[in-house]
Amino acid sequence: MKGLFFNNKNEKKLEYRDDLPMPMPAEGEALIRVTKAGICRTDIEIVKGYMDFCGIPGHEFVGVVEEAPDSSPNASIVGTRVVGEINCGCGSCGFCRSGERYHCPERTVLGIKGRNGAFAEYLTLPVENLHNVPDHIDDEQAVFVEPLSAAYRIAEQVIVRGKDVLVLGDGKLGLLIAQALSILAAHVTVAGKYPEKLAILGQSPITTVEAGAMKDDMLYDVVVDATGRPEGMGIAMSHTKPRGYIVLKTTVANPSLIDYNQLVINEITLIGSRCGPFERGLVLLESGEIKVKPLIQKTFPLERGLEAFEEAAKPGALKILIG
Amino acid sequence: MKGLFFNNKNEKKLEYRDDLPMPMPAEGEALIRVTKAGICRTDIEIVKGYMDFCGIPGHEFVGVVEEAPDSSPNASIVGTRVVGEINCGCGSCGFCRSGERYHCPERTVLGIKGRNGAFAEYLTLPVENLHNVPDHIDDEQAVFVEPLSAAYRIAEQVIVRGKDVLVLGDGKLGLLIAQALSILAAHVTVAGKYPEKLAILGQSPITTVEAGAMKDDMLYDVVVDATGRPEGMGIAMSHTKPRGYIVLKTTVANPSLIDYNQLVINEITLIGSRCGPFERGLVLLESGEIKVKPLIQKTFPLERGLEAFEEAAKPGALKILIG
Repeated sequence: MKGLFFNNKNEKKLEYRDDLPMPMPAEGEALIRVTKAGICRTDIEIVKGYMDFCGIPGHEFVGVVEEAPDSSPNASIVGTRVVGEINCGCGSCGFCRSGERYHCPERTVLGIKGRNGAFAEYLTLPVENLHNVPDHIDDEQAVFVEPLSAAYRIAEQVIVRGKDVLVLGDGKLGLLIAQALSILAAHVTVAGKYPEKLAILGQSPITTVEAGAMKDDMLYDVVVDATGRPEGMGIAMSHTKPRGYIVLKTTVANPSLIDYNQLVINEITLIGSRCGPFERGLVLLESGEIKVKPLIQKTFPLERGLEAFEEAAKPGALKILIG
Repeated sequence: MKGLFFNNKNEKKLEYRDDLPMPMPAEGEALIRVTKAGICRTDIEIVKGYMDFCGIPGHEFVGVVEEAPDSSPNASIVGTRVVGEINCGCGSCGFCRSGERYHCPERTVLGIKGRNGAFAEYLTLPVENLHNVPDHIDDEQAVFVEPLSAAYRIAEQVIVRGKDVLVLGDGKLGLLIAQALSILAAHVTVAGKYPEKLAILGQSPITTVEAGAMKDDMLYDVVVDATGRPEGMGIAMSHTKPRGYIVLKTTVANPSLIDYNQLVINEITLIGSRCGPFERGLVLLESGEIKVKPLIQKTFPLERGLEAFEEAAKPGALKILIG
């Protein structure tokens, strides 16, 4: 089949190939034909070496079920449109049993860890990871369920209701986080570098500010680092109130130099935040309160996937889709 | 009066002087004759330049009230033995009004920020900062109220009840934290470098382990970094369970290189922790469950304060007292 392949062994290069083997569903897994997939900041880091991943990247997708296990009560899902949770757990450890398979120590993660991903014609995932997409959510919206769920995850970790929230970063994740938290928080401010991206939030109650113009006395209860850059954490620390919260969404391939005395002195709580509940991502999309289509910059066919990656890696790029 | 003075302006040197001016109590403040003071890791960092402090350091002390404001209902405290909370707030900001003066943005902090400290014959503090010391707690015990309160602070920030806790560091603060949390946690392990210091916990239910002998699969719900060293945070990250907590007690003068991807991937919560409630420090001492005297290495008279600092800065030093 056709797909993008990242070989971290020799040249560390992303390649377009048309000779990739068709994936074979393991027990309990479905075969899914990918219709659209989104390039995330994490994918850009992965092709720089993050996670030491080798294989087909891609974890934001929407697709159609082509095969499902006969024995499964879900055999009827063949032909349905689905999105899929990206973490696949062992099913028996404490995390899996308590519904947190995304922390299973044995997990594979679609396109990130030990499992081929969505930048290909087909992928496989356990049936239990799949969620039906309602008819009135089209493919271009559905591909945002994964990042929107990750955005909502913040609200499961920190009480944002009634809080004054700052989101650092006007990238696609920052803009999703701002919109998702704006439903709950007292007020959301987004600090970014690109006036044209901040303008996407123009019709919302969200305040936007150019990052360079932030004053020292602009302090917030909760600061989300969605900059995708190593310096994001330091900026977050300087704009968090004493006893406030920093939520870290940034992962970068290299370690960063951090003066963390301010964390101790101001008793700041720093929370790492990763994947979120797809049920909530779907509900948020259905509500119509989250505008995702203005975040799409361009869609490339799979054959032009390398070009899509180049475009997505450019500073200021919004969401690039493949499919 | 006699005292130690750190001049950060010229030579950046701690000096012993006998010509320091007697402190003058401001409105609402008491004059206290210091009987014993303890050297803390923070003091060692301060004389390296941390906090850009200039003046008399020292914030762990016990003393006797020599003067108290006439107008105060506390005039009767003259002659009583006291310990004192180290943060002095403005009294009118939101933090002060909600009982969190240690986060008042205008605060001074005894021997740390804008206020002369305890390595001298006398100091001044607001009357409201003082706590009487019960007769059966002697001076050598009372000087531990400040660090013991800071140790207890952790239990106000993270639920440790029923948790498996690791304390990194067998310094004086690490040993206090281990004892304080051991009362609440399911189990406490201390990882340290010095068998003779770990041996102090010999009679307790606390497990001790040599830091170098820790295996990768030793993972804990809550990890406290009390190493006082920049590398402490990285070690903490590698021994924290997914969705676990790291409590940071370490402050160091220089920034550290941190690979914080693990915080995001494992959704770890990192909490900065500073000062704690003196009421709890006193209760813990009164309970008799916390052994502080074995933590005292040596007591120096004020005149030999510089020697005391040299001793306290040596690797492996336990608590050095002055007085």
